[in-house]
Amino acid sequence: MTEKDSESGLLSKIVSLSKRRGFVFQSSEIYGGLRSAYDYGPLGVELKRNLMNEWWSTMVHQREDIVGLDASIIMHPEVWRSSGHVANFSDPLVDCKVCGERFRADKAPKVEAGSKLTITLGDKERARLAEERLARTEGVKLERRGKELVGAVAGNRGDICPNCGSQFLSDERQFNTMFRSSLGPIDPIGGVLEAAKAALAEGLDDAALRKRVDDVLKESTVYLRPETAQAMFVQFLNVQQSMSLKPPFGIAQMGKSFRNEVTVEHFTFRSCEFEQMEMEYFVPPGEGPKYLDYWKEERLRWWKSIGLSGDNLRLRPHGPDELAHYSNGCFDVEYRFPWGWDELEGIASRTDYDLKAHTQGSGKKLMYTDPEANDPETGEKGWRYTPHVIEPAAGATRGMLAVMCEAYAEEPGGEDGKGERTVLRLHPRLAPYKVGVLPLVKKEGMPDVARRIAAEFFRAGVKARYDEQHAIGRRYARHDEVGTPYCLTVDGQTAQDNTVTIRYRDSRRQERIPVAEALQVVQRALASDQSSCV
Amino acid sequence: MTEKDSESGLLSKIVSLSKRRGFVFQSSEIYGGLRSAYDYGPLGVELKRNLMNEWWSTMVHQREDIVGLDASIIMHPEVWRSSGHVANFSDPLVDCKVCGERFRADKAPKVEAGSKLTITLGDKERARLAEERLARTEGVKLERRGKELVGAVAGNRGDICPNCGSQFLSDERQFNTMFRSSLGPIDPIGGVLEAAKAALAEGLDDAALRKRVDDVLKESTVYLRPETAQAMFVQFLNVQQSMSLKPPFGIAQMGKSFRNEVTVEHFTFRSCEFEQMEMEYFVPPGEGPKYLDYWKEERLRWWKSIGLSGDNLRLRPHGPDELAHYSNGCFDVEYRFPWGWDELEGIASRTDYDLKAHTQGSGKKLMYTDPEANDPETGEKGWRYTPHVIEPAAGATRGMLAVMCEAYAEEPGGEDGKGERTVLRLHPRLAPYKVGVLPLVKKEGMPDVARRIAAEFFRAGVKARYDEQHAIGRRYARHDEVGTPYCLTVDGQTAQDNTVTIRYRDSRRQERIPVAEALQVVQRALASDQSSCV
Repeated sequence: MTEKDSESGLLSKIVSLSKRRGFVFQSSEIYGGLRSAYDYGPLGVELKRNLMNEWWSTMVHQREDIVGLDASIIMHPEVWRSSGHVANFSDPLVDCKVCGERFRADKAPKVEAGSKLTITLGDKERARLAEERLARTEGVKLERRGKELVGAVAGNRGDICPNCGSQFLSDERQFNTMFRSSLGPIDPIGGVLEAAKAALAEGLDDAALRKRVDDVLKESTVYLRPETAQAMFVQFLNVQQSMSLKPPFGIAQMGKSFRNEVTVEHFTFRSCEFEQMEMEYFVPPGEGPKYLDYWKEERLRWWKSIGLSGDNLRLRPHGPDELAHYSNGCFDVEYRFPWGWDELEGIASRTDYDLKAHTQGSGKKLMYTDPEANDPETGEKGWRYTPHVIEPAAGATRGMLAVMCEAYAEEPGGEDGKGERTVLRLHPRLAPYKVGVLPLVKKEGMPDVARRIAAEFFRAGVKARYDEQHAIGRRYARHDEVGTPYCLTVDGQTAQDNTVTIRYRDSRRQERIPVAEALQVVQRALASDQSSCV
Repeated sequence: MTEKDSESGLLSKIVSLSKRRGFVFQSSEIYGGLRSAYDYGPLGVELKRNLMNEWWSTMVHQREDIVGLDASIIMHPEVWRSSGHVANFSDPLVDCKVCGERFRADKAPKVEAGSKLTITLGDKERARLAEERLARTEGVKLERRGKELVGAVAGNRGDICPNCGSQFLSDERQFNTMFRSSLGPIDPIGGVLEAAKAALAEGLDDAALRKRVDDVLKESTVYLRPETAQAMFVQFLNVQQSMSLKPPFGIAQMGKSFRNEVTVEHFTFRSCEFEQMEMEYFVPPGEGPKYLDYWKEERLRWWKSIGLSGDNLRLRPHGPDELAHYSNGCFDVEYRFPWGWDELEGIASRTDYDLKAHTQGSGKKLMYTDPEANDPETGEKGWRYTPHVIEPAAGATRGMLAVMCEAYAEEPGGEDGKGERTVLRLHPRLAPYKVGVLPLVKKEGMPDVARRIAAEFFRAGVKARYDEQHAIGRRYARHDEVGTPYCLTVDGQTAQDNTVTIRYRDSRRQERIPVAEALQVVQRALASDQSSCV
């Protein structure tokens, strides 16, 4: 494999390929584009579907202990109060422009104006990226020493980032990371203005005015879910009872989530509308650590199985300072993206925090009774407990981006300067087309034969692409670029002996085989753990 | 097949089965439920996925001329201004409580107080339903004559519904059927209150105040898409160019849409969050009628292919009064739901309205140039035109409900009173489980053998369910109720000769077959056009 391009170069090449070949377009591009939303084109939708179907198949279809769920995006607003999202997502907050930490300014450390500051990042790589970003966005050049940036001097503002110590902070603002909307067709702004007029006539101050207005809004306010996970807790009882499930068991869900991100970056990596693949695994108290161990390995293995190489994957344990207060362990599966290591999936041990929070919020006891186990406290038969949760929460959108980064390669030409190409070495199971069926020329009945072959693949449920435009070399190049693992070329001989030329994407090797064998070649590759097709 | 239950009875049985067996739960049920949103449980998510995958396979994978798209739910707000949704979805409007028509009160017909009114519905069935609804919701008993309801007397209000002539109208309200939200993490209400205070201090009147506030909101306002279709128009050029497509060609998309419905009814049929399967087929000018004809038949055929019977399906042409002003033809595929005929899908000829609207709105020419065709006006080679559109727009959520209504049957017991059962006669391709694998008892190694058989099905990509809880008869009943077409029972003999008992869902017939044949039986059924398994 050729050496990967420099990071920013690779990402911009993928952005360009994505648009040119129909993988990813900017949302509403003809209207100037929408900040941080993307549309998946004809090939992108297939790649994303294939990736997500792999996850579903592995997590739900091939296991006895996990079932699926597909909950609504708009849930009852109390769900987000119980989960803590309303409180945590709507404080008056400040963002650190260096490390991205968001915090309440009134709780931040204070320093004297003129103090010399040392900004400390997690590691050297992060320090390097922060240095570049500050130069770019703030026009500030700091000196880098390992994972530290030095040379900054505190201004009059006085507060610094509690995480990295930087004074490069946004203004304090009322943030609401959850997208808010209103359920019911009556426009809520009319009510807001009525309330505001009345409050002002009464001479209320700003805080009281805001409170009055919030009360009006509250009646119809709903949120777009910022994660899919809460539905699995809220529907715990319905799922457990309808399916007669006994811990350990899991509930899995894939789908869209929405966050009003302050910083959107790295193409589709961090955007306001994105897709997740999350699973909540419910276990008896005390068994969390065991299953955290199991799931972190299982998930790492899965990312490898769809073609990400071990060199570009790592499991990073969270330090105590990163853990949520209720969590007793968390690992990130990180991928080496063009901009550095970044998160693909988090696998967290969440104890019984979530089910207890919703038990308290809803008044419904989200518990399980094991009639066969002995209650550890009383020693009596019949143990009623709140299950503990292990949550492997993966990003589908960023998973697809990782897959594209991994698969992208440019190969130089031979000594004659020919044969240079771009190739997307996708695992055949992920490839948008499994096979291209190409008549050598658009005559002598070759298109008909090729179409019949394509139809055979359709019947076998294998996605084939009939393609007759342009010279055969250009068609091969086009299929290389979109990751089609095999091309079958129909020529004059095909009609006589039912053979075709099969061309392998990765080696560009060509050989002549019976048409029927082609289907087997492709089906074998689809069932394989190998991502190459040579 | 047994005779269907009375309408309301059938629907309530499906609601009950849906909750009991994990098909559909009310959203956020433990918090009292969210009005008009539903969660798809472990079996419902599989049924819905199977239905939508069938559509995708038929529309995208098995055709050369249609490609897929998966666009963001939040699009640029200008999209909805160009499409007409902002104007049409946000007037001060009145709803007719009889026929559901929504209209501007100032443009409605006026009558004298005390006038005798005749309310005219589309047909007898609709009149019957309207009569019932009025009795239920308004406590008014009118006389029904064919498709008319007589006996109502106009009140002082004076305006009546321009569609059916009823005076049962909602109050006039500022409606916004599109869900509105705000892009960017800054809370917009702060800005609204600032603007309101300033405007009031200046002594502006209500209209000017509202205008000022709307200007503030406009900067961040976005909408949740009320349909998936517009993305295919907005991305027309990106898709056409990246895929080198030539009309006639189509762009297909499945996914969530959101509408703040005034009336939510019939379980999942009309809800605020729902899923669609839409396709825009772009054709040269003049070819619209031909392809409208083609697609109406094609779509009707598809609904039959997934198991809806012809008796319960019809194509209803829209009358001239129902057609949008730009449309030159539209058919609804209607299903005979428990409450009467209602829409599953609309197939509309939309002329060049959409692409021209977005051309005007965006300034980008959404056109196609056919280098080989002659321009009909100049007679010269090279014809540049705005394609016309045929749109088959199907409901996935209501499609699933139709499938459940069709499949649900109750069978009486024999003369001995035994054998009474509920069965869901789903097409095997739609069934959540294709096969149940059941050890006769939980001992003598039967569970291990059954698990190995289930694993073979997994490897073949066929969804199997291992199930060992309760007596075998109860397990059969459970699988009948969720539509599993085949059960394989492992008993003492299985370990010796690798045979199992296969039980057919529809006939309840049982026979002994080799395990390997079971896989073939199931695979044959999955490839079949027949929905029965006997």
